[in-house]
Amino acid sequence: MALPRISADRLWQRLMALGEDGALPGGGVNRQALSAEEILAWRRLIDWGAGAGLKPSTDFAGNLFLTLEGSAPQLAPVVAGSHIDSQPTGGLFDGAFGTLAALEAATAIAEAGLTPERSIVVVAWMNEEGSRFAPGMMGSELFAGLRPAEEVMAVRDADGVSVGEALKAVHDAFPRIARRPTGFPVHAYVEPHIEQADRLESEGAVIGVVSGIQGKKTYEIRLTGREAHAGTEPMARRQDAVKAFAGIAARMHEAMAGDPLVKFTIGRVVVEPNAPSVVPARVTFRIDLRHPDNAALEVFGARIEEIAKAGAGACGVDIRRLVDAPSNGFDTGLRMAIGASADRHGLARLDLLSAAGHDARQMASLTRAAMIFIPCRGGISHHPGEWAEPAHVAAGATVLLDLLMAEAGVSSKQGDER
Amino acid sequence: MALPRISADRLWQRLMALGEDGALPGGGVNRQALSAEEILAWRRLIDWGAGAGLKPSTDFAGNLFLTLEGSAPQLAPVVAGSHIDSQPTGGLFDGAFGTLAALEAATAIAEAGLTPERSIVVVAWMNEEGSRFAPGMMGSELFAGLRPAEEVMAVRDADGVSVGEALKAVHDAFPRIARRPTGFPVHAYVEPHIEQADRLESEGAVIGVVSGIQGKKTYEIRLTGREAHAGTEPMARRQDAVKAFAGIAARMHEAMAGDPLVKFTIGRVVVEPNAPSVVPARVTFRIDLRHPDNAALEVFGARIEEIAKAGAGACGVDIRRLVDAPSNGFDTGLRMAIGASADRHGLARLDLLSAAGHDARQMASLTRAAMIFIPCRGGISHHPGEWAEPAHVAAGATVLLDLLMAEAGVSSKQGDER
Repeated sequence: MALPRISADRLWQRLMALGEDGALPGGGVNRQALSAEEILAWRRLIDWGAGAGLKPSTDFAGNLFLTLEGSAPQLAPVVAGSHIDSQPTGGLFDGAFGTLAALEAATAIAEAGLTPERSIVVVAWMNEEGSRFAPGMMGSELFAGLRPAEEVMAVRDADGVSVGEALKAVHDAFPRIARRPTGFPVHAYVEPHIEQADRLESEGAVIGVVSGIQGKKTYEIRLTGREAHAGTEPMARRQDAVKAFAGIAARMHEAMAGDPLVKFTIGRVVVEPNAPSVVPARVTFRIDLRHPDNAALEVFGARIEEIAKAGAGACGVDIRRLVDAPSNGFDTGLRMAIGASADRHGLARLDLLSAAGHDARQMASLTRAAMIFIPCRGGISHHPGEWAEPAHVAAGATVLLDLLMAEAGVSSKQGDER
Repeated sequence: MALPRISADRLWQRLMALGEDGALPGGGVNRQALSAEEILAWRRLIDWGAGAGLKPSTDFAGNLFLTLEGSAPQLAPVVAGSHIDSQPTGGLFDGAFGTLAALEAATAIAEAGLTPERSIVVVAWMNEEGSRFAPGMMGSELFAGLRPAEEVMAVRDADGVSVGEALKAVHDAFPRIARRPTGFPVHAYVEPHIEQADRLESEGAVIGVVSGIQGKKTYEIRLTGREAHAGTEPMARRQDAVKAFAGIAARMHEAMAGDPLVKFTIGRVVVEPNAPSVVPARVTFRIDLRHPDNAALEVFGARIEEIAKAGAGACGVDIRRLVDAPSNGFDTGLRMAIGASADRHGLARLDLLSAAGHDARQMASLTRAAMIFIPCRGGISHHPGEWAEPAHVAAGATVLLDLLMAEAGVSSKQGDER
């Protein structure tokens, strides 16, 4: 009986095919959470999984699971995957690579005629990106019991559609796939992903052994002024929310200068009524703050809140903390196994911290968890120009296959039969 | 034969009724240019005009005319009115008062059984506000030949609908009303309007004799950076368009401080892709700059362009000048007639400059033009809380009636018959 091997060609072709669901005219994808495009992508995954005998299921949170059943299905399964939603102008690899690498590894085991002891579950988490419905990581947070379901289901997109409504549309599109409880026991979780930075590339490494995920705080800040006529209202009497925003945002950016490890982004700004000749009454904006050092993250977070309060001027200010996640560390045993697999296959590796957030953060609160990074060209991600080399895609899936076989008990069991 | 008198009750009731087209739940209206709500308002105006024998017509530019035909229709008519489009969160009086005051004055003449020598044309100009399609004043600019028709028709709203397309929908809704040339000869133009500032109110005056309109410049500025992942892209390598915007906007606001006559507004800001965890690639924003002194307007305009160029940092900057209108003065004879009418009716009056722009600016380039202001409470306008007292509404229409009778030759002609 042959040892399982991943098919680099099939994995690459599937990555390209998945990029057709939500393809943007100039390259890249817009496949936001719970959208019609994501429904198309679900269909592809379910069909591909069925070809290898993987059974689809979903849960209340809208996560998609494809299960290769083990010989001891009563044991907690090994879970691997990522997400298939994208940013509005996203790339072909963020999320898709990890999900399809897990599908490829499970398919390779099935095609080799092997049955793992523990079931292997390929997962695509609901709304990792958080662009349509903010903040992201909803599926893994619900799975890990980190956020109340009612709160998540009530979040609305810019068109007023709630997560609950959008999720119903997805589930309605797949009436026959099985439902399972949200948050079943998991033996181990492994998530492959592109690095979304350029350390692997610049140091010539192919496999990133991820030590943990840098801490993150996100805020929604609302400035409330008063509408008035742009031609007549005296400046001294105005409560101009865009003026307040500009001062606050400029001061925040100044306050972040100097520390090369801080990441500070105001990515979303909504102005109301947003008419050229009306003094703007409201600005609602989002802050994304990250730092690998938890103490520094706290200091910068406090500074942000100070600046927002001090700079509102004539406007009212309302600060909401959406995400407050310190840096975390992944499981030492899994990290060692990733390193050993890379060495075995002759793949240069590097230990590194993830600057981006991932569903693996939530899974680490629930079980042993780890991440496998591969390089992405120029560190460019969340952009249509995102790119990973086919050889690196294959390398990441190969290392994942080793981990799944070890964790699900494929190699040992089959070893006995040889 | 009785001298014509306006009906204060009818005028007020019509103002309130027009406010139902586009009524907002909490008060005020959203009746943007060429919208379904404006079509409803057209229907009301046409019906009300028909009741007094006024004939509707429209032109290529989407202006609505209601004509009380004179005994010498070959002579250039007297035109009076304003507009009926509103800001997204507008009030019941801006534009609507002037249009309905003109309709009331023409109706009063017709109901008194009088025929003016010159025709009297009540006008509602297309897209004065410029909130849906920017910049505003489109109908009067096309009428006065100040902007190329192709350029105006190609402007698109946020949903991608062009002026030409929206205008076709309006004209299609009224297939039987007559078409007339855009920009016919005009004997005189008078526009009543709420002041949109509080000088009349604070000085206890009822009629504002408008000396002119303060100068205005508007710009659209686009900052172009590059999308990147908010958690991974090093700050030093980012081209963050919101960061550039904040710095530029804050510096512009600082540069405007100190001169009590300048009016500076950034009312519209559009961020792309506007996703919380993506470094923003583009910010497009509008500047509305006004100053009664033309030299000062030029200085502030130059300063704005300097700041935009200097502050773009790693982003590209593109500056478009949309409107560049110096302060103008209205016709001396018409202004004297307004003052004399106010005195005759015992209405306290005040000479003042309009801080807001109006269609009368464009008409002043074509013919003798003037404006009659009435107070608006607290100077609040472009806001649902906009309010004018019924007595002031009636006073403005009464003064307009005097002007229309004199300019269209009602009083003199009827005087001969007495």
